[in-house]
Amino acid sequence: MWSFVSTWPFSRQTAEIGAEVLKNGGKAMDAVIEGIHRVESDPNVDCVGKGGFLNEKGELALDAAVMDGDTLKTGAVCAVRGFENPVDIARALMDNTRHSILVGTGAEEFARKMGIPESAMEDLITETARENWRQAAGIGHDTIGAIALDENGSMAVATSTSGANMKLCGRVGDSPIIGSGFYVESGVGGACATGWGEDIMRTCCSYRCVSLMADGMSPAEAVAKVVRTAHETIVRHGGRPDCIALVCMNAKGECAAACNHREFSYVYVWEGMNAPLVIEKEPVIDKDAGDKFIDGVVGYER
Amino acid sequence: MWSFVSTWPFSRQTAEIGAEVLKNGGKAMDAVIEGIHRVESDPNVDCVGKGGFLNEKGELALDAAVMDGDTLKTGAVCAVRGFENPVDIARALMDNTRHSILVGTGAEEFARKMGIPESAMEDLITETARENWRQAAGIGHDTIGAIALDENGSMAVATSTSGANMKLCGRVGDSPIIGSGFYVESGVGGACATGWGEDIMRTCCSYRCVSLMADGMSPAEAVAKVVRTAHETIVRHGGRPDCIALVCMNAKGECAAACNHREFSYVYVWEGMNAPLVIEKEPVIDKDAGDKFIDGVVGYER
Repeated sequence: MWSFVSTWPFSRQTAEIGAEVLKNGGKAMDAVIEGIHRVESDPNVDCVGKGGFLNEKGELALDAAVMDGDTLKTGAVCAVRGFENPVDIARALMDNTRHSILVGTGAEEFARKMGIPESAMEDLITETARENWRQAAGIGHDTIGAIALDENGSMAVATSTSGANMKLCGRVGDSPIIGSGFYVESGVGGACATGWGEDIMRTCCSYRCVSLMADGMSPAEAVAKVVRTAHETIVRHGGRPDCIALVCMNAKGECAAACNHREFSYVYVWEGMNAPLVIEKEPVIDKDAGDKFIDGVVGYER
Repeated sequence: MWSFVSTWPFSRQTAEIGAEVLKNGGKAMDAVIEGIHRVESDPNVDCVGKGGFLNEKGELALDAAVMDGDTLKTGAVCAVRGFENPVDIARALMDNTRHSILVGTGAEEFARKMGIPESAMEDLITETARENWRQAAGIGHDTIGAIALDENGSMAVATSTSGANMKLCGRVGDSPIIGSGFYVESGVGGACATGWGEDIMRTCCSYRCVSLMADGMSPAEAVAKVVRTAHETIVRHGGRPDCIALVCMNAKGECAAACNHREFSYVYVWEGMNAPLVIEKEPVIDKDAGDKFIDGVVGYER
């Protein structure tokens, strides 16, 4: 019984491609990579790949990662310029070297050696991205994350993002950071995050979520607990949490998500469905939890 | 009651400086930064700062991180060239921006803006480092990590490394990665790692260790469990673990370390001592644990 989940409504195309791979007996790893590759190449998605948010200098610098739940091997690239599909570089790193993270010009040199197609940076920057940058509209910072379970029980996760709009040159958020932006172990489950990376990293949200599922929690219980305690821990330490959202899947392919803000939704598709489902749910405001915590749990167990 | 712990015998100078800061009522954060700064500037330490291992191109590219246990804020820099003290850049990032990670040229530009002293790369490369590189003696990969508890109960951790000898350009290990190379929460405890970063990252060793101390385990119990399960998890997923070593400290200042190899030792000093203690202990080989797991627990509880 295969299953696929990904972040934000713009990832419907990701889920469609992932479902096609899995339906035909393909691997979880191929499902997440091919699905995310498509969104990276879509100039209309403003936070991933081509058309993504620009840094303070007006450059497009991308982050991506992939993790194989069978081997616990990862590949991650950070601040890559001049490539439309950083997720392909991340996978090539995982598959062909003993290393797990490459950054900046080193990652770009590696991509060239691997024959991954390069682009002039200007070709990857859209007029909308340039306009967001001119206006310093500095709040955009979403990530595509996808988790897949294939018919053999293998699981995989991948993430890709342009990071925060107007970020400092070289800034990296949670998306390519194992344990924070993503984690997966076949037979247990996977998780990935989207939001303000600096806050997601403070409590290693994705690793914690998988760890709670390993201890026997359902996806909805695990993800709600992780987001709630991430938020409360930051408050307890004198901080003011920005956006934190997490999706997860267990080894049965059941999914759930949670967030500490109003507007998160995700896309879910499994073997029993004709088309991906975009899942949204009214958030529940909990006035006792400190600093207006909003419990946006949107669990889906079939 | 202050306390200070750091990795490897070469960190005795780190512990002496850290102890001096703490003895005079200084902050945990200043203790770890000043102690690590000294080792970075010591050309005789072959895996940190000046004199560190070189990458495949013969360049010195450094990683460092710092975490404040009071705020859970972090600063980390990756693949920085031309600076002797990356730990100072990491701290400046944490103190002066909303960001937590900067990589490559972006981190270097930020360091210049902050007025952190720059060096010609050749001045940071020793004849020994060049010789290791010429001989492709590709096994060196240690990290200085330090954890401090000050008299106010604040805790801090910092790490610094040149990474693996002959690494790919842009390669980053666990040292600047929150949850893997380091983690600390005041009132709970801290941990930091040294070894083959790619294997340490697979199970987010430092976050797990702090998390187990939060659940009530002693430092020795927590660190032994983390290293053992890190090793066994990699074996279970078909891998062959390289070196993993971890030190930790709880909120009372008690310390412990564990490793899956024979030769790890660490330096420990607290208020009741005249001078830092280098702690080594015979490892215990456990033949039942699979793949020759060596339990190198060297706990120290006063």
